[in-house]
Amino acid sequence: MDWLSEIEAARARVRGHVVKTPVLEVTGFGLDYPVEMKLEQMQHTGSFKARGAFNTLLSSDVPEGGVVAASGGNHGAAVAYAAHALGIPAHIFVPEMAGPTKIGLIRSTGAELSVVAGEYANALAGAEAHEQDTGAMQIHAYDAVPTVAGQGTCMAEWEEQGLQADTVLIAVGGGGLIAGALAWLQGVRKIVAVEPETSCALNAALEVGAPVDVEVSGVAANALGARRIGSICHGLAEKHLHRSVTVTDEAIIAARDALWRERRQLVEPAGATALAALMSRAYVPAPGERVAVLVCGANVAPDPLG
Amino acid sequence: MDWLSEIEAARARVRGHVVKTPVLEVTGFGLDYPVEMKLEQMQHTGSFKARGAFNTLLSSDVPEGGVVAASGGNHGAAVAYAAHALGIPAHIFVPEMAGPTKIGLIRSTGAELSVVAGEYANALAGAEAHEQDTGAMQIHAYDAVPTVAGQGTCMAEWEEQGLQADTVLIAVGGGGLIAGALAWLQGVRKIVAVEPETSCALNAALEVGAPVDVEVSGVAANALGARRIGSICHGLAEKHLHRSVTVTDEAIIAARDALWRERRQLVEPAGATALAALMSRAYVPAPGERVAVLVCGANVAPDPLG
Repeated sequence: MDWLSEIEAARARVRGHVVKTPVLEVTGFGLDYPVEMKLEQMQHTGSFKARGAFNTLLSSDVPEGGVVAASGGNHGAAVAYAAHALGIPAHIFVPEMAGPTKIGLIRSTGAELSVVAGEYANALAGAEAHEQDTGAMQIHAYDAVPTVAGQGTCMAEWEEQGLQADTVLIAVGGGGLIAGALAWLQGVRKIVAVEPETSCALNAALEVGAPVDVEVSGVAANALGARRIGSICHGLAEKHLHRSVTVTDEAIIAARDALWRERRQLVEPAGATALAALMSRAYVPAPGERVAVLVCGANVAPDPLG
Repeated sequence: MDWLSEIEAARARVRGHVVKTPVLEVTGFGLDYPVEMKLEQMQHTGSFKARGAFNTLLSSDVPEGGVVAASGGNHGAAVAYAAHALGIPAHIFVPEMAGPTKIGLIRSTGAELSVVAGEYANALAGAEAHEQDTGAMQIHAYDAVPTVAGQGTCMAEWEEQGLQADTVLIAVGGGGLIAGALAWLQGVRKIVAVEPETSCALNAALEVGAPVDVEVSGVAANALGARRIGSICHGLAEKHLHRSVTVTDEAIIAARDALWRERRQLVEPAGATALAALMSRAYVPAPGERVAVLVCGANVAPDPLG
C-alpha cells in the first residue's frame, strides 16, 4: 500500500469539506515541559471522524441506496454529516451505549437512524444486514483504506502547521486515527498509542501478535470501545508504533477536567485520553524529548447546553 | 501616547507568561462567508484579561502590600492568577453578580477575596477603600495604560499569526480589549465594537461625545456590564473605530449555542457577543470584505463539570 499517495489524494479530496483545526503549545497540566496540541475535536460533528467519512464518500462510486454505517456515535455522526453535505442518503446503526448526546447529534443531520441494544458489535451486525438487504455501501468506522487515509490527513495537516514534536500521543479505539498517523509518518516521528485499561484492543493485539477480541467498558467506551483492533491499524502498529500504553478511567477524567479548568476545552473522555498518559506518567518523555497530544473528540454527555 | 512602543514592550514582558492562543478559519454559523477566529478564551483563567494583568504587574514597582483589583470576575481572576504566578499578594473585590463560577475561580488561585453586594461599581469602591487603607496597588480592569497595552498584545499576536481580515469584531464591556486593538491597529484594519443592547457604555459615549453612565443588565452583564466606558477606550474609539453595533440577548445566546454545536467551543455569553453581530446581521460585511471575530471568554456558569 502506498500510504503517502493515498493520504495526499485524501487531502486533495477533503479540502474545503473539513475544518483545518487549530494547533497550539501549552504548559501546565502538572507537567514540567510544554506540550503541542491539535484541537481536532473542533472538526465537523466534534471528532476527527469527518475526515475519513468525506474521503470515503468522495472516493467511492456510491450506489443509489446510499451509505450505511455502524458506530459508537462519532463515526455515525460524521458519516451522516458528510452524506448530508454531499446529498447522499445515509442510514446509521448506533449501539444504545452511544448515549443520547451522540444519538441526538446523528438524528440532527437528517440521517435514518437505528438504535441497537448493547455494544458496537451489535450495531455492526445490523449495518451488515442492512447492506445485504438494500445494496447500500457500508462505511467501516476504522478498518478500511479510505477511512484510514482520511484520518491520516489530520497528521499531514499538523505537520504542515509546524508540528515540532519528536513524539505524538494518540488515543486508540478501533485504531483508525492512529493508523492514519502511522501510515503518514512511517517512523519519522514516534507515535505512542494510548488506550483505557478497560478498552485496550491494540494493546492486547500487540501482546499476542494478532487482533483478538477484548472486553470493553469504562468512561471512554462509547468512543474507544472497539472489541477488536482494526487489522490495518495492527499491521501499521507492528511496523511503526513506538509504544503502547494504557491509562485508568481516573486518569482520563483527571485529564478531561484539566483541559477544561486550564484551557477551557470541554472534551469527551476519549478526547482527553492521550493527555492522560502524560499526566498520569504512563508515558514519561526523555529529557529534551518534545511531545504532542492529539485532542480528538468533544461529544460530551450530558450536553452542557442541555 | 506612543501605543505601538507600549504594546511592543508589553509583548516582550508577557512572553512566556501568557498563552499564545490558537487561530483558525471557520465556515458555518448560517453565514455565507468564512470567518477568522482567535480563541482567546483559552488564555490563562479563561479570558484575555491575563495579558493586561501580567503586563501591569511586570511593569510596576509593586508595594509590599501587594495589589488590589475590582472585577466582574474575569479581571479579578486574571490579576489573582498573575499575582500568584509572580509571588505577589493580591486582594480581589468582586460584585456578587459575578456568580459562583467566577468567584470560585478567583478563590482557587489563593487570593484574598471580598464579595460585594450589587454590581461592579460597588466592588470598585471597595477596592479603592482597600487601596487607601493598605497602600496596595490598584489594578484597574480596563482604564489604565498598562492594562490596555497588555490587552493590545492579543491583536499584535493575531497579526503575527497571519490575520487576513479587513475587519475585526470585538465585544466591549469597559473597553480594555478593544482599546488595545485600536491602539495597535490605528486604522490599519477596521474594528467593529459589539455590545449587548442592555450593556452598551461605548455606544452611549459615542452618541453623546463623552463617557456617560448607563444601566447594565442582560446575559453578558457579569463580563460586559461596565457602567461607564473607559476614557482611554473612548478616546481611541473616537479616532479609530469603524463602527459600534449592539446585539440582543437572544442573538448572544444563539451565537453561544452555535459555537458549541458547530465548533465545540463552550464560551460565556460575552465570549460569543462579537460573533452574534455577524449571525444577527447587526454587522453585514460588504461583498469581499474579510471578517474576523475575537472569542474572548469562557468562564461559563454553571461550570459544566460541576
